[in-house]
Amino acid sequence: MQRGSDTDLEAMAKAANPARIRKAPENFLGADEIAAVSNGRRDFLRGAFAAAAALGAGAAAAEESPKGDEMILKPQTWATTLGQPVAATPYGMPSKYEGGLIRRQSPGLTQVAGASVSFMPLQGMFGIITPSGLHFERHHQGWYDIDPNKHRFMINGSTPEFVKKAKVYTLDDLMRFPSVSRMHFIECGANTGMEWGNVAVPTVQYTHGMISCSEYTGIPLRTLLEDCGVDWKKAKFVLAEGGDGSAMTRTIPIELVASGEVIVAYGMNGEMLRPENGYPLRLVVPGVQGVSWVKWLRRIEVGDKPYATKDEAVHYIDLMPDGQHRQYTSIQEAKSVITSPSGGQTLLEKGFYNITGLAWSGRGKIARVDVSFDGGINWVEAKLQTPVLSKCLTRFNVPWNWDGKPAILQSRATDETGYVQPGYRMLREVRGTRSIYHNNAIQSWKVVESGDVGNVQVL
Amino acid sequence: MQRGSDTDLEAMAKAANPARIRKAPENFLGADEIAAVSNGRRDFLRGAFAAAAALGAGAAAAEESPKGDEMILKPQTWATTLGQPVAATPYGMPSKYEGGLIRRQSPGLTQVAGASVSFMPLQGMFGIITPSGLHFERHHQGWYDIDPNKHRFMINGSTPEFVKKAKVYTLDDLMRFPSVSRMHFIECGANTGMEWGNVAVPTVQYTHGMISCSEYTGIPLRTLLEDCGVDWKKAKFVLAEGGDGSAMTRTIPIELVASGEVIVAYGMNGEMLRPENGYPLRLVVPGVQGVSWVKWLRRIEVGDKPYATKDEAVHYIDLMPDGQHRQYTSIQEAKSVITSPSGGQTLLEKGFYNITGLAWSGRGKIARVDVSFDGGINWVEAKLQTPVLSKCLTRFNVPWNWDGKPAILQSRATDETGYVQPGYRMLREVRGTRSIYHNNAIQSWKVVESGDVGNVQVL
Repeated sequence: MQRGSDTDLEAMAKAANPARIRKAPENFLGADEIAAVSNGRRDFLRGAFAAAAALGAGAAAAEESPKGDEMILKPQTWATTLGQPVAATPYGMPSKYEGGLIRRQSPGLTQVAGASVSFMPLQGMFGIITPSGLHFERHHQGWYDIDPNKHRFMINGSTPEFVKKAKVYTLDDLMRFPSVSRMHFIECGANTGMEWGNVAVPTVQYTHGMISCSEYTGIPLRTLLEDCGVDWKKAKFVLAEGGDGSAMTRTIPIELVASGEVIVAYGMNGEMLRPENGYPLRLVVPGVQGVSWVKWLRRIEVGDKPYATKDEAVHYIDLMPDGQHRQYTSIQEAKSVITSPSGGQTLLEKGFYNITGLAWSGRGKIARVDVSFDGGINWVEAKLQTPVLSKCLTRFNVPWNWDGKPAILQSRATDETGYVQPGYRMLREVRGTRSIYHNNAIQSWKVVESGDVGNVQVL
Repeated sequence: MQRGSDTDLEAMAKAANPARIRKAPENFLGADEIAAVSNGRRDFLRGAFAAAAALGAGAAAAEESPKGDEMILKPQTWATTLGQPVAATPYGMPSKYEGGLIRRQSPGLTQVAGASVSFMPLQGMFGIITPSGLHFERHHQGWYDIDPNKHRFMINGSTPEFVKKAKVYTLDDLMRFPSVSRMHFIECGANTGMEWGNVAVPTVQYTHGMISCSEYTGIPLRTLLEDCGVDWKKAKFVLAEGGDGSAMTRTIPIELVASGEVIVAYGMNGEMLRPENGYPLRLVVPGVQGVSWVKWLRRIEVGDKPYATKDEAVHYIDLMPDGQHRQYTSIQEAKSVITSPSGGQTLLEKGFYNITGLAWSGRGKIARVDVSFDGGINWVEAKLQTPVLSKCLTRFNVPWNWDGKPAILQSRATDETGYVQPGYRMLREVRGTRSIYHNNAIQSWKVVESGDVGNVQVL
């Protein structure tokens, strides 16, 4: 079995100059919160079961765990009794032992929980599909479970010249149209935003948890615009408007719509959208930051100018080093992160580990991912899991033998355009340190001799 | 917009000789059960909301539904109030209006609900990924939520010559191994089994609902056998053993294991396996009938002969016309089904419909799917959604203009080996009418003038 070559970790430890490394401030979250967050499904990481017990997720999980073979020889309850019937849970739920794997709001990040964020627990997840129950949330005026029978979707022109006939559709109407199903990631433009300000959030759930990936089903917006008789020559932009009280409105260039990629979606991972994700209709804008994937979608307006609404003039703009703002920088550039081991987790012992993580690009497919164990001096190419899809998460794995000495783990994505994910030094030279959005820098996790893994920034 | 060419439905109606068609017996399930099953998320189908109300899934769903544009002009509650906070549901659930989309046990199919089946509601689902909460169930002694800390997995040889060192693994051990993530369908060998006996089950949930499709993460069994020092020259078969009281045991040819396709899986759709699906470990045997995907997997034994255990000598065997049984016919051949419109649903009115369904093959990728609206006389090629993956569900869509006259909808899959899904006449000529397993015949749905859709068999 191929288990990867040993890395010269001694040389690495020397090369990774501690002066270039900032320790994660441990007081950003309470120890309990960090412990809770670190409770993923990585059982080789010490503390996972203890944390589960602390959460009340399953006291049994903290019981003794005999070593050796006795567990396989002793007849267990589940081998000697009749279990639960089928359809005991007509809509099934995770094991009681997995109660720690949940989305979490960052304490203190926002003033109002109705206009806040909950993060996806990447540290304990596998593959690329996000189970809808763990999809991250970002609401501007809370979420709604809208009666689909009362929801309407309208298409009109800013002036009559842009569409021949403005139309209002019911869900019934929309579901009769030709549909497409496609897998795409959605990432909030503010994902990893805390890291700009030299604040090292302790866990990957909070550094990178504003991302998810689903299979969406719906109608290409192009099809619906054609149904309304859009004038493709005059149309330059569309405005997408949400049904919630925040009046979320975002400008989208017509090229994205004309390509057929933008979808008016009603389905997500095999079933209808979840209420938190815009049920019964949301816009899917592959490769573009999440705020443009307007939820509870009620209207598309066609025009020839950007609309410069509040959510694109005041929010979701990039503060540059010269004090000016960049607007409409909506494509999520290539990015990656090692999800396990990651901050807040602890390696049990020396030896072989499967390093795993996620990579994505708003420009197309991921071409390769390289991983470093020495803070970026040496790199090895990771193995990409298939399918590798455009504007979709890609799972990577790479083998590692930990010799018990300090190590710095990094991943670096390259997409099919040739774009390479930058380090913090490069990103800050161009973008400064006071931005919030579109931080796609290389993430570093430091492993210390105790096996504890923490968030560090390598400049 | 391309909406497909009109089909000559008049000619079709004449050609589809009624004498060749058997009506679905409406008394197989009660009218309530059929109504409930037909409540998918196909809102263009009359009765969906009424059924939801009957289920108590959301009384609001049955409220008045104004036509015209007034709904888009009137400020709605959700546009004028603050909604729910983030993480209100740390593990999210479907909308209250989707309460009818659940897995269901077929009434009367088995004597004991602990050794029975619950079916996936294909009629209301999209894309290819099965949300884990809707995954079909087939248990032989009920399901268990096994403490992962107490679960062990063992590999040994039938005699010491087959593996150098028998080993017992904990979950901690297994999660350190190199992992793979892959999307595959699982289909029970008995799926569509009722149709052999000329019993027309009324809905697609009951005809084809013993199938699901997930992204699995785990370790190739090949890797673990190598870790135990398997003798690849002597090994010819492995026996997989489950941890439940049914002592489920299945023989698997070593070639499938040596290919690297067989996975010892702990992850499903991004999180740990669900209890009903074998938490914390199940075998994934792509292309092979579900019974071999042993749940609560506790042991793999390596040997050189098939084991002929009770579940492969008495069950999961094919009764042939000459009275003999075929054993070890485990590959699920190419098959497809139109999921909407399907039995128990009703078309609202004449006009355009998006016909959608699923195709799969245990031999590899789906190459094409053809759809007929006239009981198999004329065929049009359906559009396959991407990605098209090996031994995975493939979603197809095809446009259709219904002129209000009777129609018979069929789909026919062809896989990359060139194998074409057979009709019932061909299947019965070879396999007779008294079998239970491995029915992959073409499914027919009859649309009558009222718009009602029913299950019919075209011979």
